[in-house]
Amino acid sequence: MTSTTNPDLQKERDTATFDPLLLTNRIDGGPEKTRRRQYIQNLAATDPNLVHKHISFMDRSEEYDTAVKNACYIVKRLKELNITDPTEEYWYRHAATPHETPAFGLHNGMFLPTLRAQSTPEQYKHWVPDSEAYKLIGTYAQTEMGHGTFLRGLETTATYSPMTEEFILNSPTVSSLKWWPGNLGKTTNHAVVMAHLTIAGKNYGMHGFVVQTRDMDDHTTMPGITLGDIGPKFGYGSNDNGFMKLDHVRVPRENMLAKFAEVKKDGTYIAKTKNTKLTYGTMVFIRAMIAGDAARGLAQCCTIAIRYSAVRRQSEIKPGDPEPQIMDFQTQQYKLFPLLATSYALLFAGSSIRDTYFRIEKDIQRGDTKELPELHCLSSGLKAFNSWAANSGMEVCRMSCGGHGYSQASGFPKIYTDVTPACTYEGENTVLMLQCARFLMKMAEAAVKGQPLAPTLSYLANTSSRTSLTPQFNLDSLVAAYQHRAARLIKAAASRFQGLMAKGMAREDAWNASSVDLVRASDAHCHQFVISTFVSVVNEKQNKDLQKVLKDLCQLYALYGISKNSGDFLEDGYMTGEQIRMVEDGVLVLLAVIRPNAVTLVDAFDFNDRILDSVLGRYDGQVYDNLLKFAQESPLNDTDVHPSYYKYLKPLAMSSKL
Amino acid sequence: MTSTTNPDLQKERDTATFDPLLLTNRIDGGPEKTRRRQYIQNLAATDPNLVHKHISFMDRSEEYDTAVKNACYIVKRLKELNITDPTEEYWYRHAATPHETPAFGLHNGMFLPTLRAQSTPEQYKHWVPDSEAYKLIGTYAQTEMGHGTFLRGLETTATYSPMTEEFILNSPTVSSLKWWPGNLGKTTNHAVVMAHLTIAGKNYGMHGFVVQTRDMDDHTTMPGITLGDIGPKFGYGSNDNGFMKLDHVRVPRENMLAKFAEVKKDGTYIAKTKNTKLTYGTMVFIRAMIAGDAARGLAQCCTIAIRYSAVRRQSEIKPGDPEPQIMDFQTQQYKLFPLLATSYALLFAGSSIRDTYFRIEKDIQRGDTKELPELHCLSSGLKAFNSWAANSGMEVCRMSCGGHGYSQASGFPKIYTDVTPACTYEGENTVLMLQCARFLMKMAEAAVKGQPLAPTLSYLANTSSRTSLTPQFNLDSLVAAYQHRAARLIKAAASRFQGLMAKGMAREDAWNASSVDLVRASDAHCHQFVISTFVSVVNEKQNKDLQKVLKDLCQLYALYGISKNSGDFLEDGYMTGEQIRMVEDGVLVLLAVIRPNAVTLVDAFDFNDRILDSVLGRYDGQVYDNLLKFAQESPLNDTDVHPSYYKYLKPLAMSSKL
Repeated sequence: MTSTTNPDLQKERDTATFDPLLLTNRIDGGPEKTRRRQYIQNLAATDPNLVHKHISFMDRSEEYDTAVKNACYIVKRLKELNITDPTEEYWYRHAATPHETPAFGLHNGMFLPTLRAQSTPEQYKHWVPDSEAYKLIGTYAQTEMGHGTFLRGLETTATYSPMTEEFILNSPTVSSLKWWPGNLGKTTNHAVVMAHLTIAGKNYGMHGFVVQTRDMDDHTTMPGITLGDIGPKFGYGSNDNGFMKLDHVRVPRENMLAKFAEVKKDGTYIAKTKNTKLTYGTMVFIRAMIAGDAARGLAQCCTIAIRYSAVRRQSEIKPGDPEPQIMDFQTQQYKLFPLLATSYALLFAGSSIRDTYFRIEKDIQRGDTKELPELHCLSSGLKAFNSWAANSGMEVCRMSCGGHGYSQASGFPKIYTDVTPACTYEGENTVLMLQCARFLMKMAEAAVKGQPLAPTLSYLANTSSRTSLTPQFNLDSLVAAYQHRAARLIKAAASRFQGLMAKGMAREDAWNASSVDLVRASDAHCHQFVISTFVSVVNEKQNKDLQKVLKDLCQLYALYGISKNSGDFLEDGYMTGEQIRMVEDGVLVLLAVIRPNAVTLVDAFDFNDRILDSVLGRYDGQVYDNLLKFAQESPLNDTDVHPSYYKYLKPLAMSSKL
Repeated sequence: MTSTTNPDLQKERDTATFDPLLLTNRIDGGPEKTRRRQYIQNLAATDPNLVHKHISFMDRSEEYDTAVKNACYIVKRLKELNITDPTEEYWYRHAATPHETPAFGLHNGMFLPTLRAQSTPEQYKHWVPDSEAYKLIGTYAQTEMGHGTFLRGLETTATYSPMTEEFILNSPTVSSLKWWPGNLGKTTNHAVVMAHLTIAGKNYGMHGFVVQTRDMDDHTTMPGITLGDIGPKFGYGSNDNGFMKLDHVRVPRENMLAKFAEVKKDGTYIAKTKNTKLTYGTMVFIRAMIAGDAARGLAQCCTIAIRYSAVRRQSEIKPGDPEPQIMDFQTQQYKLFPLLATSYALLFAGSSIRDTYFRIEKDIQRGDTKELPELHCLSSGLKAFNSWAANSGMEVCRMSCGGHGYSQASGFPKIYTDVTPACTYEGENTVLMLQCARFLMKMAEAAVKGQPLAPTLSYLANTSSRTSLTPQFNLDSLVAAYQHRAARLIKAAASRFQGLMAKGMAREDAWNASSVDLVRASDAHCHQFVISTFVSVVNEKQNKDLQKVLKDLCQLYALYGISKNSGDFLEDGYMTGEQIRMVEDGVLVLLAVIRPNAVTLVDAFDFNDRILDSVLGRYDGQVYDNLLKFAQESPLNDTDVHPSYYKYLKPLAMSSKL
C-alpha cells in the first residue's frame, strides 16, 4: 500500500482556482478556530485508545460494548485535556466516535441539563454532583410506545400518596411503556420520567420525576421496573434505546423536580412562575444545531462521492480513448455539484440561525423575547428543510458511486443511518413545517392589514410581478425570485385556510385541510432564507478568488432550485418559458465552471479521514488497495471454509450423488 | 397477545367500496393464479423448518449460515413439492426467505443459465447435470474492483498456451480482482470467469471460462486462487459477495465456453454465429422483472405505512377530541396515497413489459426482432424509472411512521436495503436511461423526416399545443398531457444534441453534453408509458366498483405527477397557471376520495405477513403487543446486566468517588 496521493486526485488539487484553507476558515469562523478544531480533532483521530475495528464487523453486543468503553475513556480524556467548551467537546467526540451514538448522550444532553434547569437548590445538591461524576448516569424518559410528540397523549401517571409522601409511578398498558429513550435499556441507572401528576383524582399535567432504574451496587433492574433494549434499528446500533415498564413504583415526594411546581406534604399543588420562553429558546438552539448536523452529513457524503468520482475511471466518452474520470460525465456532475452547492447553502443557513440565537440569547434570558417567534419559525422550518434535503441527497451521493457505494467500506450507510433520524426526532419534520407555518400565517394577515412585518418576512410587502432575471443571473434577482415565490405560496396557503373558514369550516379542520399548502409555504420560506443567507456570504468582503467560487456555487444552488421547481415561477407569469430555459442552460454552464474546483471544494469542508470513515472518500484517494484491506479484515474471512459447508453444502452434494 | 384484528383496522375494511379479491386477481392474472400463489406462499410461510429468529438479531456469520441452511432446505423441498415453474419457484422463495439474498442465487440465476446457453453439447454433459444436482455450485464472475458495466475495461486475461493446451487466467492488479460476484466468497466451488482471451499476443475480447474455485472434497480454495468475502454492505448480509484473485491459474482448453467461439489445439480462433439479439432478449426480460420487483418493494412499504397509519393515533386535530388515526391528517395522506397510486402504476407497467416480452419471445427466437429495440428502450428506461421511484418512495413510507419506522421491527430497513441495489445492478440507472434515449433520438429523427414511428412512440407525431384538460380530469386528456410533455422533452434533447454537433462538437462529446436532457427525455417517455398503461387497465371491462377505485388511483397518480412537474406543462403554454391550480386542488380532493379505501387497497396487494416481516404492517394490526415481543427477543436483552457494566461503568463510578 502506498502513502502517496492518487495522481488523479492530486491533479484536481493542483488546478484549483482558490485556496481551500480560506474557505475552511470561513466555515469555522476564523483561522484560529480552524487551527484549534484541527488540533482537537487530531487528538481524537490519532489516539490509539480509540482505534477499533470497523463497526460493521461487530455484532450488536460488541458494538454496544465498544460504545460504553469509548464513552468512559472520553470522559477521562476530556478531563485530562481540560476540554470543557461545548463546541470543542463536540469536535472531539465527533472525531473520536464519528456517527456513533454516545453511551452518555442522554446523560449529558438531557438528564443533566434537565436536573440543572428544573431542580430546587436542595435537589441540585442531591443529584447534580454525583451525576457529573458519572455515579448517577441518567436518561430522559418521555416518549411512550403509543405516544410521541403529543405530550397530553402520554399515559404514564404519578399519583401522589399523602400517607407515605410518595409518588406512585405506573404504566398501565403496553402502549404506555416508555419507549425509545436513549441509553435507557442497559446503560443508565436513573431517569427523569415524564408523567401525568395526579393528586386526589385530579390531573395536574406533565411533570418530571427522578426515578432510580438500576441498583447502584450491582446495576440490576430495580423492583417494580422492567427494563430492556427496544431491539435493533436501521442504525444507532451502539445505542441501547430502551423501554421501561413502571409497576406502581414509589419515589419520595422530593423526587419531583420542583423548581417550577411543588407538591406539599398534604398534597397541595403549588405552581411557581416558569419562563416558558426559556425552554422555547433551548428548542431553537437544538434545531439550529440539527440543521447544521444535517448539512455536515450531506457535505461528508459529497466529499466521499466527489473524491471517488475523481479517482474512478469507467466507461468511455469517445471510442478508443482511455476511460475517463467519472466526474467528467455530465450526468455525474448534475447529480453531485448541485448537492455540493446545497451542502454549502445548508451549512451557511444553519450557522446563521445558530449565530442569531447566540446574538439574542442574552435578550431572551433578560425576558426580551420579541425576536423569538420569528427565530422559532425559521429554526423549526430549517431543521426540517435541511434534514430532508440532506436525507435525499446523501442517498444520491451513495448511488452515484455504483456498487462500491453500497459497501460499508464506502462509509455512506453509516452516515445515512446516523443522519436520517434527524427528520424524525426533536419534532417530526412535517409537524415542524406546520409550526413554522403558524407564524407565516400571522405575518400574512399582518401584511394584508399593513401591520409591521418581522424582518425575515418583510418580503411579503414586495410587489414586483415580473422577474428581472437576465443571463448574468445577478444574485439580487435570484433572491427576489425566491422571495416572490415564497410570498405567493404563503398567500395562497393563507387564502385556502381563510377561504375554508369563511365557508364555515372549523378553524382546526380548515388548518388540516390546508396543511399540504402550509407545508409548501414553509418550505418556500426556508428556501428563500437559505438563498438570502448564501448571497450575503458571497457579498462579504473577502478574497476575490474565493468570492468567485462561492458565487458560482450560490448561482448553481439557486438556478438548480428554480429549474427543479420551475412551475412555481411560471404559474403566475413571474418567469417566462424562455427564462426557464435560460436557467436550465445556466445550470449546465455552471457544472462545467465548477468542475475544476469540485475536489478542492470538498477538501475545504476539511473532514478528517477518521470522521468520513470511508475507503472511497480517503483524502489520499488510495481507494482500491484499501477496499481489499477492508475485505480482508471482514470477519467472514477469518476462516477459508465456513462451518456451514460441513453442515449443509457437503450433505446436499452427497445426497444428490447418483 | 390477542389474535383478533385491531378495531380501527377492521373498521377500514368494513367500509371499503370494492372487493379487494377482485383487484388481487387482476394483479395475479386471474383467480386461479391467485389461489395457486396463495397456496404456494402459505406452504413456505407456515413451514416450521423455515422459521428462524429475526435477521437483525443475527451477526453476519449466523445470517450467512442461515441463508445456506435455508437454501439447501428449499432445494429439497421444491423437489418434494414438485414445484418447477419459475414463477411458482419465485413465489415460494420469496415467502420462504423474504428480502434475503439466496445462497444459490447466482448458481440458479447466472451460472446454470450461462452453462446451458453457451456450452457445446460435450461441455453441457460435463457440467450441467452435476450443477443441477448441486455438486457443482457456481457463480458468474464478471465485474472487477476497478471495472463495472464497461466490459472492455476489464483487466483479467486468459492467455492460451498451445504447449499445454491450457488457458492461463490472471488478474494482474488490485483493480483487476473479481469483485462483487454473489456467493463467490464462501459458497460456490466453480465460477464462469469473464476474461480477455489472448492468443499469441492478440486480444480476442471477452470470453467465459469455467474455473474451479474450491476443492470438491474439502471446499478449500484452489491453488493459485485467493478468495474472500468483500465485507459487510448496507444490506445483503446473507450474501457472500466475493472477491477472487487469479494468479496464473491454468484451466484446460475445454473450459472455455465454446458454443459461439472455439480455440483449436494449435491456438486457431474460430468464431461461430451468435444470435446476439437473444442475449438482448434476456436482458429485456431481466429488466422487466426488476421493474416489477421495485414496484412490489414500494407496494410492501405502502402496505406497512398505511396499515400503521390506520392503527396509530397521535396528536389532535381539535382540542379535546380523541387522538385521530394519523391517516386523517392531510399531510399523511399526501405522503402515502400518491405512493399507493404509484405502486399500482409501476406494478401494471412492469407486468405490461413482461407480458410484451412473453408475447414476442417466440418471434425473437425465430429471428424476428423488429419489436426488440422498442422494447429494449422501454425496459431499460422502466427499470430505472421504477427503481428510482421505489427507492425514494420507500423512505418516505418509513419516515411517515415516525420513530417506529426506524426500528428493524418495522420491516422497512430490510426491504429498503434489499430493493435499493436495483438502482445500480443490471445496468446503472443513469446508464440505462441513456440507452433508452438512443432509441428516442432515432425516433425523433424519424419523426422529423416523416418516417414510420414505433407504436410506443407514435405520440411524437401529435400536434396539439393546448391541453383539453377539464375539472373532470378525463383520462385521455391526462395521457395526452404526458405524451405532449414527453414529445417536447425528446425534441428538446434532440435539438440540443444536434445543435452541438452542428456547432462542430464531436458526436460523443455532444452526447455527453446533452446527457442531462437525454435522461430527462427518457424519464418523461417512461412516465407517459406508465400513465398510458394505467389508463388502459382502468378501461378494461371489469367490475364497476373496482373500476371506480382504479380510476381514482390513476387520476391521483397522473395529477400528482403534473403538480410535481408543473413547469414541464407550463413552460410552453400547454397548460395555464389556472389549470395547474385545478390539478393541485384535484389532488387534494382525490386524497379524501381514496381515504376510505386506502387500507383495502393495500390489502389487495395481498402480501403475506411473512413477506412483509413487519410489526407495524401486520394484517391484524396488533402493533404494540408485537413491538414489545420483538424487543424482548432482542439478544441485548439476554441478560439484565450487560458485561460492559463490570468492565467500564462500575470502574468509572468508583474512580470518581470523592
